[in-house]
Amino acid sequence: MSQQTSQEKTQKPLWALAYGTVVTMDAQRRVIPEGAVVVSGTDIVAVGPASEVLPRYPEADVLDVRDHLVIPGLINAHTHVPMSILRGLVDDQRLDVWLLGYMMPIEREFVDPEFVRWGTLLSCLEMIRGGITTFCDMYYFEDQVATAAAEAGMRAICGQTILKFPSPDAQSYDESLAYARDFIQKWKGHELITPAVAPHAPYTATDDMMRQCLELALEFDVPVHIHLSETRKEVEDNYRERGLPPILWAETLDLFRARVIAAHCVHIEEREMRVLAGHRAGVAHNPTSNLKLASGVAPVVQMRKAGIAVGIGTDGPASNNDQDLFEEMRLAALLPKGMLGDPTALPAQEAFAMATIEGARALHLDHIIGSLEPGKRADIVVLAWDGPHAWPHHQVDEHNVYSHLVYTAHAGDVRHVWINGRQVLRDGEVLTVDVERVYAETQQIAERIGQFLQKREASLLDKLLAIGGLERSETFEIQVKARITNPAHIEQVLQNDPDIEIVKHTVRQQYDTYFLFNGRRHGIIRYREDNVIRTTEERGALAPLDVEPIYTLTLLGPTHEREYGNSIILSRSRFTAPAVYSLRFYREYFQPTQVREVVKWRNRYRIRYKGVDFAVNIDKLSKPAQEISFLEIKSRTWSQEDALRKAGLATELLEKFGIRPEALVRGEYVDLAD
Amino acid sequence: MSQQTSQEKTQKPLWALAYGTVVTMDAQRRVIPEGAVVVSGTDIVAVGPASEVLPRYPEADVLDVRDHLVIPGLINAHTHVPMSILRGLVDDQRLDVWLLGYMMPIEREFVDPEFVRWGTLLSCLEMIRGGITTFCDMYYFEDQVATAAAEAGMRAICGQTILKFPSPDAQSYDESLAYARDFIQKWKGHELITPAVAPHAPYTATDDMMRQCLELALEFDVPVHIHLSETRKEVEDNYRERGLPPILWAETLDLFRARVIAAHCVHIEEREMRVLAGHRAGVAHNPTSNLKLASGVAPVVQMRKAGIAVGIGTDGPASNNDQDLFEEMRLAALLPKGMLGDPTALPAQEAFAMATIEGARALHLDHIIGSLEPGKRADIVVLAWDGPHAWPHHQVDEHNVYSHLVYTAHAGDVRHVWINGRQVLRDGEVLTVDVERVYAETQQIAERIGQFLQKREASLLDKLLAIGGLERSETFEIQVKARITNPAHIEQVLQNDPDIEIVKHTVRQQYDTYFLFNGRRHGIIRYREDNVIRTTEERGALAPLDVEPIYTLTLLGPTHEREYGNSIILSRSRFTAPAVYSLRFYREYFQPTQVREVVKWRNRYRIRYKGVDFAVNIDKLSKPAQEISFLEIKSRTWSQEDALRKAGLATELLEKFGIRPEALVRGEYVDLAD
Repeated sequence: MSQQTSQEKTQKPLWALAYGTVVTMDAQRRVIPEGAVVVSGTDIVAVGPASEVLPRYPEADVLDVRDHLVIPGLINAHTHVPMSILRGLVDDQRLDVWLLGYMMPIEREFVDPEFVRWGTLLSCLEMIRGGITTFCDMYYFEDQVATAAAEAGMRAICGQTILKFPSPDAQSYDESLAYARDFIQKWKGHELITPAVAPHAPYTATDDMMRQCLELALEFDVPVHIHLSETRKEVEDNYRERGLPPILWAETLDLFRARVIAAHCVHIEEREMRVLAGHRAGVAHNPTSNLKLASGVAPVVQMRKAGIAVGIGTDGPASNNDQDLFEEMRLAALLPKGMLGDPTALPAQEAFAMATIEGARALHLDHIIGSLEPGKRADIVVLAWDGPHAWPHHQVDEHNVYSHLVYTAHAGDVRHVWINGRQVLRDGEVLTVDVERVYAETQQIAERIGQFLQKREASLLDKLLAIGGLERSETFEIQVKARITNPAHIEQVLQNDPDIEIVKHTVRQQYDTYFLFNGRRHGIIRYREDNVIRTTEERGALAPLDVEPIYTLTLLGPTHEREYGNSIILSRSRFTAPAVYSLRFYREYFQPTQVREVVKWRNRYRIRYKGVDFAVNIDKLSKPAQEISFLEIKSRTWSQEDALRKAGLATELLEKFGIRPEALVRGEYVDLAD
Repeated sequence: MSQQTSQEKTQKPLWALAYGTVVTMDAQRRVIPEGAVVVSGTDIVAVGPASEVLPRYPEADVLDVRDHLVIPGLINAHTHVPMSILRGLVDDQRLDVWLLGYMMPIEREFVDPEFVRWGTLLSCLEMIRGGITTFCDMYYFEDQVATAAAEAGMRAICGQTILKFPSPDAQSYDESLAYARDFIQKWKGHELITPAVAPHAPYTATDDMMRQCLELALEFDVPVHIHLSETRKEVEDNYRERGLPPILWAETLDLFRARVIAAHCVHIEEREMRVLAGHRAGVAHNPTSNLKLASGVAPVVQMRKAGIAVGIGTDGPASNNDQDLFEEMRLAALLPKGMLGDPTALPAQEAFAMATIEGARALHLDHIIGSLEPGKRADIVVLAWDGPHAWPHHQVDEHNVYSHLVYTAHAGDVRHVWINGRQVLRDGEVLTVDVERVYAETQQIAERIGQFLQKREASLLDKLLAIGGLERSETFEIQVKARITNPAHIEQVLQNDPDIEIVKHTVRQQYDTYFLFNGRRHGIIRYREDNVIRTTEERGALAPLDVEPIYTLTLLGPTHEREYGNSIILSRSRFTAPAVYSLRFYREYFQPTQVREVVKWRNRYRIRYKGVDFAVNIDKLSKPAQEISFLEIKSRTWSQEDALRKAGLATELLEKFGIRPEALVRGEYVDLAD
């Protein structure tokens, strides 16, 4: 056994980088002119002045890097690497247009294992050339990200995304969680890849989903990678819906029992900082992305003062548009100065720490990376220190080196990179990736996306998005509809059944105008004037109201039906926006092939049944005039499993109302009109 | 004559860049795939699709730049190019420490024609390699900047700095103006260099100085380059001292009759925007510098909406620290999004315009540069469009190109540059500057600066600066001192002379502690406890006051004496700060070799005599006890000419007070103490 170890030792390559200026980022922040870093196999074994260190390793191969800087590999603390394929495709759009109008539909259409593989390799190329040795990712088909990163020789935390709605790699979060479990089991213990669970964000999660993510992370002792408090809207919505800001909400779910990596934290309160610091959660600051998407500027100085380890990320290349940590460091150092009116707010040395040792702490990897110290992995970058932008060299004190690294060095200055002791960049050339193949494959996908977008020009969603104002993302619901002859009976059941709680009751008169197009493939646009005539809150009596009508515009996507016993439909796509323009405007804008009107009185009950919210509508159509009334039971849903459960409850409600199967109807009211 | 022209025509080289994607920045913002730009001599003669344009110029030499981008040369709208030598020397300091503690003393010591020459060439190297073809400068010895820029083949607006106090190239603004006149006469009409007058800023100018700058600019029809409204403090001080914000103050002086290029405009009111727009003044936006020096973020979107042409500048390399217009464009595009919470605030195309055609408008040069159009000068940049950061190429619409140029292109992508039809960069190599010589010369100066700083470690000003709080920059004053036996007589003259107006009268008891060091070379530190016992405003009666003592710390620099007839001294250096710590603290901190105390009663009159403000002090020393009293007459001054005039008025006052020449004394009160 000891012989084997000794054999192994002799087999490990032993080599040294020597005579360059070594920026260690160790606890003493030593900067060593004419330094040396000695590497054995995957590990750094010695760091110090070349004249002291080299004589101790006479057998080491020495690479002379004089006049260069030797720094720890940079750490990209948050990104979505496969999105390199989408970089520069659509920019300078409002978040809803960008996300709902472009990113989500394109991801739905194009994101598959191939896309993820080639996008990841393209990003690895860019990151290696720019001196990044570790990245922390969150995407779909994360197994492909891990595979490609390991091939490229990069270190990565790979977070499998979990969403409460369907995603490119799963129909529901149950599916995602199952995928994540397999993924973690496959990669756990890999020398380069750390698998992780990535619940996307509070606004795309249910409490239950978050709890299951936490359990998975704790079961396998892997990190949780999540977006937290990126936008003001996210925080406001969380307050409204959950009564707490996102991070405090996450705490109520015990999320921070796991090793959390929280991306963004732009809109974060002091008490939330204390929570993150207390639980040693790391934060990934993404200055370019936060500006570009107009999210704001994260309070980095305050978070660091509170004791939080803050790393720096590029975020996905679709919202940056590159993955250049030199640019991010620079911006991370500049922004707090301008925001706080204090040029000492974040000195260069601190910004450089955030991209190295503190980034490693934020990712819970500081025991193996982030600084050039014996015992750590050999993730090392050699930078040229010349060119007119790097001239002259002031050497008054060690701050000059950090000033250079943060305020003037460029990704283009990177000459050599080693990760885990393996050289991946030599003289600016990436050694581990077939560059031409990656360019060809990604360009091919880019061109297919271009064609898709051009074809989609006529699409309703595009046109709807183009005029702005979409406030809600796609929603999904289960729905059942029936003809009824005795609406009073149903109201009696609603009011008297002990299992049913009426949360709100409104009486509305709705004037709906439908725009139809050739075929239903593109969906239907509905313009609704909704007059709330009377309302009641929390079991109070109905009272007359004098309110302005509510005008909404809804894109009803092609309905993907799915029967659950009683003609219950899982209606897929549904985008709603306030209709701020006139009906005439929309008619001219969308140029429908047919226009149909539906006018109805609606008794709308929001009820809670066995803990689940349902809307129960009792509708009487006056145009097209119908003798009978209609009953609708609806509920929002997020996952297939949840839909099944709600379908079951809806069936129970139908029984309570005495609806027979033959009374059930499919289709929309518009189908009754001409 | 016509034959000569025809001969000239045939002698001019005719050539074309062809098959690249040409981003014209013309009025239609044409982006031409497979385009061509044809150049004859210094001028562009044709731009269009290669297939249409090339057949019209069969004799042109064609350079094939397919797969590249062809863009107008970038315009750096504001910089101080010689400061490249100071880049990275001192960063992350408060403005006062940085400026007063480092930049000003170093400039005073090192800035000479050689410094300016080599610093300019270093900057030209960097800018050419980064695709900048025109820069707008402001510095000292501007003739050297112009000479070096012309040698490097760069286009430049060269602004000779005018300051109200001594500068590296002039003892007074009269001297600077005389230098500027010669400079303008020498360069006016040069094909690359536009000379300009550069009054540094409102806070470093007197009204009279500004008026003389304006006259000079109008006389020769050259631009005025000035810093305006860079910091909040500048604006507040201008309000306090002149009752107006800087730009409105400049308008009262008719400054905008000239073609003004206003750098910064960070803190600018709407009414000021209207003034700039109305007068077609250009603005140079410096996003990195404004963040790095904690000045803030200029309201670029609002200024552009108001109709102002806004260009983009790097500012001097000491406050950036590089001169990379790709970085600045990117930041210019990102900041308004984050600040205004609107991702559409400044689209990529607009940011690119600011760095090209709109920058040209801001510099009043849009008739010759800023776009690729027939009739304009051939300032052309060819960019590589590959590398992993540039991949893939989306070509859904022309915005994809601008997204690439602004959000992902790097200075390192620049391959070829022509300025005024002359190639200055080929395959990334600068053709016009001796690179090694520039590196060697600038490094030598850098090392001398390093030695100077290390030696200066013991300096008082450094130590004073190190503890912060310096609020005022160096002040200069004329001063005369005399022994007097009859103070009552002087007070009578003050009160009764019809030419003398008493603005304010205070009675003070002052406890001064002087810290002396070996020799006076390093200056003296004075800690003062100033008790205002009684005060009167505007000729009112003296009233008792109950105020807190005022504690100040003053560094009295070595006195450079100069006699004007009656021992009147031009006292040079004088830094004052509130003394926020205890006397004990300062004693221990500065470790003086001697400490001396002076206690006195001071009758202090602020008077106006023939329109000039003087302080007249009648002092009675109680420690060291003196039988007689002393008279001091002082006035702040800014230029040699002004000092001469004030010295004359002080002499008149001495006569009015009946002071005989033999009563005059030199030296400070501290010299009387032991």
